[in-house]
Amino acid sequence: MKGTVLYGPRDVRFEEREAPRLIKPTDAIIKITAACVCGSDLWPYRGISPVTQPVSMGHEYCGIVEEVGSAVKAVKPGQFVIGSFFASDNTCPNCQAGYQSSCLQRELVGGAQAPLLRVPLADGTLVATPEVPRDDLIPSLLTLSDVMGTGWFAADAANVKPGKTVVIVGDGAVGLLGVLSARQMGAGRIIAMSRHEARQKLARDFGATDIVPGRGDEGVARIKELTGGLGADSVLECVGTQESMMQAVRSTRPGGYVGYVGVPHGVQLKGDELFFTHVRLHGGPAPVRRYLPELIKLVWNGKINPGKVFDLTLPLDQVAEGYRAMDERRAIKALLRP
Amino acid sequence: MKGTVLYGPRDVRFEEREAPRLIKPTDAIIKITAACVCGSDLWPYRGISPVTQPVSMGHEYCGIVEEVGSAVKAVKPGQFVIGSFFASDNTCPNCQAGYQSSCLQRELVGGAQAPLLRVPLADGTLVATPEVPRDDLIPSLLTLSDVMGTGWFAADAANVKPGKTVVIVGDGAVGLLGVLSARQMGAGRIIAMSRHEARQKLARDFGATDIVPGRGDEGVARIKELTGGLGADSVLECVGTQESMMQAVRSTRPGGYVGYVGVPHGVQLKGDELFFTHVRLHGGPAPVRRYLPELIKLVWNGKINPGKVFDLTLPLDQVAEGYRAMDERRAIKALLRP
Repeated sequence: MKGTVLYGPRDVRFEEREAPRLIKPTDAIIKITAACVCGSDLWPYRGISPVTQPVSMGHEYCGIVEEVGSAVKAVKPGQFVIGSFFASDNTCPNCQAGYQSSCLQRELVGGAQAPLLRVPLADGTLVATPEVPRDDLIPSLLTLSDVMGTGWFAADAANVKPGKTVVIVGDGAVGLLGVLSARQMGAGRIIAMSRHEARQKLARDFGATDIVPGRGDEGVARIKELTGGLGADSVLECVGTQESMMQAVRSTRPGGYVGYVGVPHGVQLKGDELFFTHVRLHGGPAPVRRYLPELIKLVWNGKINPGKVFDLTLPLDQVAEGYRAMDERRAIKALLRP
Repeated sequence: MKGTVLYGPRDVRFEEREAPRLIKPTDAIIKITAACVCGSDLWPYRGISPVTQPVSMGHEYCGIVEEVGSAVKAVKPGQFVIGSFFASDNTCPNCQAGYQSSCLQRELVGGAQAPLLRVPLADGTLVATPEVPRDDLIPSLLTLSDVMGTGWFAADAANVKPGKTVVIVGDGAVGLLGVLSARQMGAGRIIAMSRHEARQKLARDFGATDIVPGRGDEGVARIKELTGGLGADSVLECVGTQESMMQAVRSTRPGGYVGYVGVPHGVQLKGDELFFTHVRLHGGPAPVRRYLPELIKLVWNGKINPGKVFDLTLPLDQVAEGYRAMDERRAIKALLRP
């Protein structure tokens, strides 16, 4: 089997590797219908996170169950399933509290940019669709595996409610789907921070009412202007840098909420500044599993179309071009079809 | 008039200074019935916060209204009143949202360790009791000006709910009243972190069910043991150091809440660690004004007795001994009577 392996900065290869097989009785093997390149894949691709040995890439996936271990009861071969990038048992106290990405047995899923994938803890991790979906639903269903679930968690962690004013920091795929999530949750005003024309357009399509191109202090000042000097009720941080995090905190009103989902790289929060902002902070790796049943329903019934975030579709063997296009910001997000 | 002035580290003097007078039509002058020394007064007293010029000390107060400015309507001379350390108009959007300590017109109250005090924005800041209280209620009513309101906010920010498991980091007066607040809010299990016998005893009086003397990693490990390996639902951070803040974050379960009210000194939060904890963070200077009506009622009706936190009462002219006793941890909190 050929799969995607990252060897080092900007060195991604589609090459022969061992096909995954059942290791534990709780595993399943999935035949991948579609996978994609994640914004977080770009951290090692760009050399910002070190790569010490070749890594099988890909953690967003959907597909048909090929084979299950002897202990798997909830899914069966032939079903179309979606799972999170963190496998979880969905029964431990953290899972029961809705934090499946902090499952006591959690395990990172890896190697999804390939024709076949091993998913641990299949019963807890995978959710089947009502039937095998039409092909045009595949992109939207795929987003639920991470990027859409993450944008949704950002909005949920930021306590987006009907009528509220919401700011989204970051115009990557997660930020854009944060816009869609805020709209779906009934936000009154949705301010997307973006300076990139194609992304501004998609943000508007997804429900943004205002676009603010400024960043840093300039961006914060503009948000203050737009919110009567107070800041927004809810701010979604979807980047993960020091600048974006502080931009989010400073754009929030006292008592307001920052939902942060951009994996922090070198971010340091000064306790005294945070203290005097009165901002509420919540985030982390999205507990995608919590939202899967609800989001599958919304996609299935045509209420949301998060798949529009894919502006590049490639055959899987051209995966390296997907990384390049996203790295150079020529593409928002690349879909891969085996 | 004589009042309390801090000149530099450990140099606190009770000396002649100008009596306060009405400056703005929204001011009131209060004849102080009781004041006290705050844990936060110890930061400059210990030289941790710099003192660049002599400062009139004291920001916790209750007393009889002596005189009001021409614009003051809600309180009148002769009434017994309590106010917060932050004066607030109680009408701006931040006040309306319950964050009076982020009032757009906020002003620090200072100089309360004296017989007379000027309170700005009197209508928004001061709350009168139903009548002039009996003397035995004075200590408890005084705590509502800051220390009890701050402990209460810590518990509220940490989302304390009936039946939940709560940890309190810090056995100063705020932490101890955090214990009382958690009990009043119906917490099921209340774990006070303290290694000081007199404070452990008071914590138990206020409702602590468990005492953990360990700090840092050892303290965190013990909390994990007591909570089935998960961490607590709600953790109150009532110190403000790097160690106490990280102890609080690491003692909280995924999806749980840290309410932090210790003024942070040199605290830095690493974004990536915080991210993977899934903890919710909220805190800041307590919006004491929000809670005053409710807390006055609880004290008035004998439901809570936060005044027990004062284990030293001094005539005002011995204020320097109050600072010394608290600095040396001989006293939990010193009450001052003019």
